[in-house]
Amino acid sequence: MNEAASTLEGWYALHDFRTINWTAWKAADDEERAGALEELHNFLQEWSLMEQSKTGSTAVYSIVGQKADIVFMHLRETLEELSALETAFNKTTFAEYTTKAYSYVSVVELSNYMASGDGDPKANPEVMARLQPILPKSKHICFYPMNKKRDLSDNWYMLPMEDRRSMMRSHGMIGRSYAGKVKQIITGSVGLDDWEWGVTLFSDDALQFKKLVYEMRFDEVSARFGEFGGFYVGNVLDAELLEEMLRV
Amino acid sequence: MNEAASTLEGWYALHDFRTINWTAWKAADDEERAGALEELHNFLQEWSLMEQSKTGSTAVYSIVGQKADIVFMHLRETLEELSALETAFNKTTFAEYTTKAYSYVSVVELSNYMASGDGDPKANPEVMARLQPILPKSKHICFYPMNKKRDLSDNWYMLPMEDRRSMMRSHGMIGRSYAGKVKQIITGSVGLDDWEWGVTLFSDDALQFKKLVYEMRFDEVSARFGEFGGFYVGNVLDAELLEEMLRV
Amino acid sequence: MNEAASTLEGWYALHDFRTINWTAWKAADDEERAGALEELHNFLQEWSLMEQSKTGSTAVYSIVGQKADIVFMHLRETLEELSALETAFNKTTFAEYTTKAYSYVSVVELSNYMASGDGDPKANPEVMARLQPILPKSKHICFYPMNKKRDLSDNWYMLPMEDRRSMMRSHGMIGRSYAGKVKQIITGSVGLDDWEWGVTLFSDDALQFKKLVYEMRFDEVSARFGEFGGFYVGNVLDAELLEEMLRV
Amino acid sequence: MNEAASTLEGWYALHDFRTINWTAWKAADDEERAGALEELHNFLQEWSLMEQSKTGSTAVYSIVGQKADIVFMHLRETLEELSALETAFNKTTFAEYTTKAYSYVSVVELSNYMASGDGDPKANPEVMARLQPILPKSKHICFYPMNKKRDLSDNWYMLPMEDRRSMMRSHGMIGRSYAGKVKQIITGSVGLDDWEWGVTLFSDDALQFKKLVYEMRFDEVSARFGEFGGFYVGNVLDAELLEEMLRV
Amino acid sequence: MNEAASTLEGWYALHDFRTINWTAWKAADDEERAGALEELHNFLQEWSLMEQSKTGSTAVYSIVGQKADIVFMHLRETLEELSALETAFNKTTFAEYTTKAYSYVSVVELSNYMASGDGDPKANPEVMARLQPILPKSKHICFYPMNKKRDLSDNWYMLPMEDRRSMMRSHGMIGRSYAGKVKQIITGSVGLDDWEWGVTLFSDDALQFKKLVYEMRFDEVSARFGEFGGFYVGNVLDAELLEEMLRV
Repeated sequence: MNEAASTLEGWYALHDFRTINWTAWKAADDEERAGALEELHNFLQEWSLMEQSKTGSTAVYSIVGQKADIVFMHLRETLEELSALETAFNKTTFAEYTTKAYSYVSVVELSNYMASGDGDPKANPEVMARLQPILPKSKHICFYPMNKKRDLSDNWYMLPMEDRRSMMRSHGMIGRSYAGKVKQIITGSVGLDDWEWGVTLFSDDALQFKKLVYEMRFDEVSARFGEFGGFYVGNVLDAELLEEMLRV
Repeated sequence: MNEAASTLEGWYALHDFRTINWTAWKAADDEERAGALEELHNFLQEWSLMEQSKTGSTAVYSIVGQKADIVFMHLRETLEELSALETAFNKTTFAEYTTKAYSYVSVVELSNYMASGDGDPKANPEVMARLQPILPKSKHICFYPMNKKRDLSDNWYMLPMEDRRSMMRSHGMIGRSYAGKVKQIITGSVGLDDWEWGVTLFSDDALQFKKLVYEMRFDEVSARFGEFGGFYVGNVLDAELLEEMLRV
Repeated sequence: MNEAASTLEGWYALHDFRTINWTAWKAADDEERAGALEELHNFLQEWSLMEQSKTGSTAVYSIVGQKADIVFMHLRETLEELSALETAFNKTTFAEYTTKAYSYVSVVELSNYMASGDGDPKANPEVMARLQPILPKSKHICFYPMNKKRDLSDNWYMLPMEDRRSMMRSHGMIGRSYAGKVKQIITGSVGLDDWEWGVTLFSDDALQFKKLVYEMRFDEVSARFGEFGGFYVGNVLDAELLEEMLRV
Repeated sequence: MNEAASTLEGWYALHDFRTINWTAWKAADDEERAGALEELHNFLQEWSLMEQSKTGSTAVYSIVGQKADIVFMHLRETLEELSALETAFNKTTFAEYTTKAYSYVSVVELSNYMASGDGDPKANPEVMARLQPILPKSKHICFYPMNKKRDLSDNWYMLPMEDRRSMMRSHGMIGRSYAGKVKQIITGSVGLDDWEWGVTLFSDDALQFKKLVYEMRFDEVSARFGEFGGFYVGNVLDAELLEEMLRV
Repeated sequence: MNEAASTLEGWYALHDFRTINWTAWKAADDEERAGALEELHNFLQEWSLMEQSKTGSTAVYSIVGQKADIVFMHLRETLEELSALETAFNKTTFAEYTTKAYSYVSVVELSNYMASGDGDPKANPEVMARLQPILPKSKHICFYPMNKKRDLSDNWYMLPMEDRRSMMRSHGMIGRSYAGKVKQIITGSVGLDDWEWGVTLFSDDALQFKKLVYEMRFDEVSARFGEFGGFYVGNVLDAELLEEMLRV
């Protein structure tokens, strides 16, 4: 039996991608739309208060292209909270004007491939800040799910721990060379959703997503072992921008 | 010809995933909704009586994310009973407010890779309790279908029985190390549905799903031979929680 | 050039899987439903007469799970008859309450891998009975399409005839060991539909499907060369059971 | 760099598969249906005149099974003509009673693997008749798209020209052995649609499709290098048969 | 760690494929249609002014076959502009008569595999004209997304830089041999959409798409390492042709 890397988990994550039914939204009367926007606004405020109390975090971005119009990325302490949040949103008037586009369930994760110290890592405030992160409000978001391959001679899970550790270290160094340019949040989804990990990137310059992911693709851990799902890229939405987007 | 592991089969299983049409549900009048909820409530009671008489078992969970809103996992003695149950549900008023999201047909299975004794295993009450299990009401559920790979040099079905047995033993030991934390129900679906097995996990701590499945992934039987379908994760629903979820 | 096994073909087959729109069916008025049921009943009678005259055969089963609600498996002498039958059904009132779920076009086939005799096989009444079979009315049906793999070193079509023949013989022996328990109808669909063969199994015990397909999976011809599509399993419907299923 | 086989191209092809919305068609009033049929009839006549003037060709077949109800296979001199034809059809009343099922864009192609002579092949009337063929009105049609594989050691495009030529010759000989039984039209779609080629077969005996494609599958060029999309099979429709099909 | 080719990026690209709902478009009254066409016309004019000011470029083509009816290919300086453009289009009356068919998000890219000079390439007007190109109005368009393979021994990203450079050079030479016949715009989409690159070809002769892509397929870089998505081919639409297309 091969050795698994131990992991630390923080908040659960729900990426909730929605498409707007513009025809219905335009056909709604002003009062209906005003009511829907108010409900939506109340959610934004509630989520903002939650962030202030550090019991969760939510980011809202538009999505470019036809895959979706909006993504709500929610971090919460429990699956029950995510479920309640999702159901509450589904019951809003605004939700009637959207259709489901894609979603992803995962949990913020730090892997021990790069473990450096002794003692209980959860006692380390820096570690806790990474496990329960307040999501950045950068101009752009990029999300994609991924697996580590298990394909004949390219089987990540059959490699000795030492090889995996050394490849992950080199991989991490690329990530670190983008410090200040790209903020990266890794969520694990083995046993929770269809891929093994979700990667969410934040940056003020969308080109950095391309440069980071492209550079990593030549790294052995991605080149030989990375398997990627769909990529979603978007622009930040605050209350004002969201209102502008929905003005008809 | 290679030797197949003999298996014992118990109750048939139907996992029935449904999505709620919230717009229609909210638009229904109070009387319609009350009627639908009563029908649903009657089903829950009927299923509960069935469990008491040990002629079947049903678990009801919400599902996190957009894949589905609810799963009904039914165990019954015959395919005809599952079919009747499915048709009866399809005829309810509540079903009009749902759409089909996914389903899985299988049968509770014990494989003989770990066979330990002589005599008719079906005479053993412990074996029978595993073949006709009353489903736990743990806080969380996790379901996924899976195959054993048949890909060139990674072909499970071409391995000698001895190799398969020894790998399954090591695999089983990981499962057993989660005893008390995760309850695992294996259902076979060769000849019944699109994958070879269904795995349903129950736990009061959803993180244990991730830890168990991740640890197993480094085990040769999963690393080289496991092929996985979609993962569905959710929270338990009793009558009260279901009513709360559906309150609008 | 490698040698193809010669084959004998009998009746053409159309597996026609349908899903019932229960909401619409319940909303129809009694007269509409009565009319639809009568049309359906007339078809059943017509198909029964056809079987008596041995000019075709039809089996009707419900399907367990969400993939479909009913399958009509039709055997007829020509593609034109299948087409006419399909169009006639599509024009019925009952068809308005169904949606298409899946279909499969093929032709009953006997391969010569197991050829034993001289002379014109079509002069042999036993052979003709297998090429133009009256479908059993067993309690359960199982249908799945399949290919023989062509994947690098696992390429069925590059094997010498002798190897294929010997593997098919061993494979056939498993099938024969289920005689009396499972009735198997092989239909070829190379050039007719998306997979190379359709397999339709009939049994009074659905577990035999699982046992047969599982045992075969360890046989080299399946283990190395079998590639399988979706599996559909169901329960027999006679006029009475169909009426009961549709009673609302 | 490896040598590509040079090709000759003729008419562009659009295979346009449609599904009939029978419920809407039956619900239409007689006048509406009569108008729709007249429009359709006018198209058939227009296409027939076009064939007489040898500026294009169109074949109309029903499709067996749920994939589609009708296919219109159009050959025209330019992509603009195909586009105009498609748009004109989309604007008809009949089109309102159909939904799109599948389509394929390609161009009639002769490859030089079997080139035999000198001089400008387009000056050869026999070659031109193959590049601008009048489609047969045989009883049956079979269409499927295909690729040549590029999978590790089974990579058609990495083979020397000589090997490809010799395999294609053997392949062509199987085709020729069906002369008089099956008429084969190869259309190239590299750069035009999702597969590299489309194959359209015509025959008065649908079993010949199965026999031809099955025999070819043992030929190295198909066995090792053929990759196939969906197969569509159908029955010829002339004005009378089409009217009969649409009579409700 | 392997060396990535450095790249230069220019304008962001959105390919926006739409399908027309002809039934609804025909059912609209004249005034509604006139209003929709006027809005559409205003967009075309706005896009044309933008091209004149060299702050972006838009091409409009019809698509042959059922995949889509129209593609709008937009190049703009920022993702925010593409998003605003998309949202503005979604709010038009014309958009109500279309459904989304496919979209692709990428950014114009020049790779340095063929880098020839010193100094800041962005100071070179020729380079800038390629990074911020005004799209041709050729008769035909062809779009397809693609990856470089990472499959066991055929893994582009594990090759030494020198091998990649020399293969790309040979590949580029094929492209250059089509100069004057085919204009090629490469957009990178690593980190932006589901494939690694988008290729958009323009030509007055659609056969050149086939010839170019077919010839390239024998080149090692495509033969061994190219992985292709769907191909979309179409005819140019100016204001007049678009109006003609939409006339009912």
